[in-house]
Amino acid sequence: MNSTELKVYLGERREVVEKALLTFLPEDESLGNIYKAMRYSLFAGGKRLRPILCMAGAEAVGGAPEKVLFCGCAMEMIHTYSLIHDDLPGLDDDDYRRGVLTNHKVFGEGMALLAGDGLLTQAMVLLTDPKAHQGQDPVRVLQASQIMMTAAGLMGMVGGQAADLEGEKQKPDLEKVQFIHTKKTGALLTAAILTGAVLGGGNEDQINTLREYGSRIGLAFQIADDLLDLMGDAEAMGKSTGADAAKGKMTYPAVMGLTQARQTGESLVEEAAQLARNLGAKAEPLEALALYIMERTH
Amino acid sequence: MNSTELKVYLGERREVVEKALLTFLPEDESLGNIYKAMRYSLFAGGKRLRPILCMAGAEAVGGAPEKVLFCGCAMEMIHTYSLIHDDLPGLDDDDYRRGVLTNHKVFGEGMALLAGDGLLTQAMVLLTDPKAHQGQDPVRVLQASQIMMTAAGLMGMVGGQAADLEGEKQKPDLEKVQFIHTKKTGALLTAAILTGAVLGGGNEDQINTLREYGSRIGLAFQIADDLLDLMGDAEAMGKSTGADAAKGKMTYPAVMGLTQARQTGESLVEEAAQLARNLGAKAEPLEALALYIMERTH
Repeated sequence: MNSTELKVYLGERREVVEKALLTFLPEDESLGNIYKAMRYSLFAGGKRLRPILCMAGAEAVGGAPEKVLFCGCAMEMIHTYSLIHDDLPGLDDDDYRRGVLTNHKVFGEGMALLAGDGLLTQAMVLLTDPKAHQGQDPVRVLQASQIMMTAAGLMGMVGGQAADLEGEKQKPDLEKVQFIHTKKTGALLTAAILTGAVLGGGNEDQINTLREYGSRIGLAFQIADDLLDLMGDAEAMGKSTGADAAKGKMTYPAVMGLTQARQTGESLVEEAAQLARNLGAKAEPLEALALYIMERTH
Repeated sequence: MNSTELKVYLGERREVVEKALLTFLPEDESLGNIYKAMRYSLFAGGKRLRPILCMAGAEAVGGAPEKVLFCGCAMEMIHTYSLIHDDLPGLDDDDYRRGVLTNHKVFGEGMALLAGDGLLTQAMVLLTDPKAHQGQDPVRVLQASQIMMTAAGLMGMVGGQAADLEGEKQKPDLEKVQFIHTKKTGALLTAAILTGAVLGGGNEDQINTLREYGSRIGLAFQIADDLLDLMGDAEAMGKSTGADAAKGKMTYPAVMGLTQARQTGESLVEEAAQLARNLGAKAEPLEALALYIMERTH
């Protein structure tokens, strides 16, 4: 799969995900402002990378991607909740996200806080909904829930965000940067792939390979984002650039320099692509996706 | 079971819950401030009513209470997360809770926000942990997760908190008060009983009876709390009193008067006690608990 084919694949999958999200969180005036706030951020754009990775994870182990859509959509809700809370005045205090006003700028701080809580809980409602996972082995559904919530929680995203918050007062170093990003963004990306693979019927070997793959693309994504932020590619980022550096945030280029950061990113995606190749033709999208991560920064 | 016996029962159960919580969230310096913040609020006292109700729900259908402890503790984490977020400046902006500083007053706003997120996700990590629910039917574990997260989310607690937030600007009326409290506090109390009953092996009839029981004690608890707040019993409430009335919050006495609120509370606990009696001797604690709710206000 070359990068043109990958773009078609990503576009098609993204449409499938959009439709599914609209089914799982349909418009409903009766549910008031809290529901409006939840939908505002969920439908404010985004690449839908986590649901796409979830489906690709299922595919890579021979499962049916459409059967794990509910899980991918739950992942997207968790991702969106994390963005809403991250943007709040108590954390990053951002006014814009993906070119539009952040949730609390539109709905107020209290409602935005609750909209985040609502999306996080709704993700679990969806994941444990017997109508959503018809015919799936309940043991595997529980296993997927465990993977997802562990990645979202203290040992994953929440832990990473906390370290990031505390890191603002500290001098950046490689160990801290790696800790923060492995947890803050890497854990959920990896979990997206793994839950798809678990629900898709993957065996232990396949799941271990995908875990290795996930940890590498998780870091590579962060390095690429850091590089794009530095390169000032406002269009690709959909937000004001140079922002992370200005805040003295922990970034890869800040601790290892631009050249070394780029080389590390390239090595990680090469390793990830090789891991995907080991899984055979079904994992071609994952291989192409890995290679594409650093392409964006060329 | 008279009220003296009930107090012994509640005391004993509370100790069991404290021990279990310490097992599920043990001290661990390596996990940093975020974990400290999560534990600060989880171990800041509290009656542990939800875990006790969860165990009593299992008992009432002939199940073993200690086998649902993990679920009761997950409930307590969800309850604690909701208190942390509720106290934040964006919502109630409270400095004290149960006589001690609120989470954000000790750890800062960002960390408190994340500590709430951490407890909510940790509840699901615990609920879906195969080590925690050894030997339980995975279908029933999923069912319990569904009940818990629905009660915690948009259709339950989050929805109720949002309505409460918006209600601050509106004139209180009975319909709104009922909507808010059924969702904000009632849903989670009922879910505590129901998850216990589901995991305890309850049948549909038993679960329906407990749902009716739960909805009644949920409202009665809120009425009793409103009355205690008005009566200014600072000791029983563990926080400054008259606070709700001062904020123009939706309370039962405010919309129906003191006498009518008290009568409604008494009717609800009588009905709840009768429903518990219908379940037989195993539900005696639930009967006694219902009757005790309004006793506190005498």
